[in-house]
Amino acid sequence: MQVIEKQSGAAFTLKKGQTLKVIDPQGEQVSDMVLFNAEDKREKISSGKTLDFEESILITEGNFLWSNRSKKMMEILKDTNGRNDFLLAPCSPETFKIMYGKNEYHPSCFENLYTNLETFGIEPDDIPTAFNIFMNVQFDEEGKLSVEPPLSKAGDYILLKAKMDLIVGLTACSAEDSNGGSFKPIHYEILG
Amino acid sequence: MQVIEKQSGAAFTLKKGQTLKVIDPQGEQVSDMVLFNAEDKREKISSGKTLDFEESILITEGNFLWSNRSKKMMEILKDTNGRNDFLLAPCSPETFKIMYGKNEYHPSCFENLYTNLETFGIEPDDIPTAFNIFMNVQFDEEGKLSVEPPLSKAGDYILLKAKMDLIVGLTACSAEDSNGGSFKPIHYEILG
Repeated sequence: MQVIEKQSGAAFTLKKGQTLKVIDPQGEQVSDMVLFNAEDKREKISSGKTLDFEESILITEGNFLWSNRSKKMMEILKDTNGRNDFLLAPCSPETFKIMYGKNEYHPSCFENLYTNLETFGIEPDDIPTAFNIFMNVQFDEEGKLSVEPPLSKAGDYILLKAKMDLIVGLTACSAEDSNGGSFKPIHYEILG
Repeated sequence: MQVIEKQSGAAFTLKKGQTLKVIDPQGEQVSDMVLFNAEDKREKISSGKTLDFEESILITEGNFLWSNRSKKMMEILKDTNGRNDFLLAPCSPETFKIMYGKNEYHPSCFENLYTNLETFGIEPDDIPTAFNIFMNVQFDEEGKLSVEPPLSKAGDYILLKAKMDLIVGLTACSAEDSNGGSFKPIHYEILG
């Protein structure tokens, strides 16, 4: 079991056929995940392709995560919480400036993704919209979005099976709105 | 006035302060648009950043289109139709194979974007999720998506003001579902 401390991140490889378990150990915490093809980093997770092929805004158990090259990157085998977001970009320094009105330094998923993924030769501009595990973004029929505290309870988890060799970036989210202002760790485990 | 013939595309530059008018001359046609910073092509339009900063799935008059570097790329000054999509990736050869069950060659917005943008040094893997002008993607409260014929009538248009020097890729959509099976041209004009 690996621990991602609050407001930090991790990056690692996952072999085709292995399963990644991402756990919310205390409840109400979000984990942003990005994926790259380990053989060719220009292939990466795509929200646009995933929402298109899965024909849904909400992505959960039974859905696949697709790449910009229209290939399956992961299959969601299990999702005990069932609410994730794939609309919003990872929180970044500008998120806190523009949306929170904070000008001082603030940790962000964007920074925690690109600093951890740097060892794999991945640069800030390469970071796509993440699959935001446990993130609770509500929308109404007019399309208005609101970020609410996650519905996840302590111990909720998601199981994701790799469909190709992957580089994975994963965070314990740094944004107040995403987790009700209570920054917490995320746990993960590589199975099989 | 420039004409994009049915199932084709165009690419051109737009200076900061200029306004792009995209017109649906016959009604019920979609135009996929991608944007790149003309000074540094690694900066490009981002659905995740736009939906985040604009706090809405539906992007129309009064909204901005944002880049992956959290900068404003365009402002939507006018939108006579009012329904656009920013969820789904441009139709690609795989769209027709996977979603339409067609294995023979089919023109696609993805191909029409990257072939036209090639002259600017932009490669297929660089193409992000497009802002799909006039595209009518409906969603229910469960997040289920359906692609419906556009609501645009002949002559409907959108005015987009450049907030930085841009490279623009634009199509007349090739996907049956996007335009009710009636492929049509798109017109555009660069104003002042």
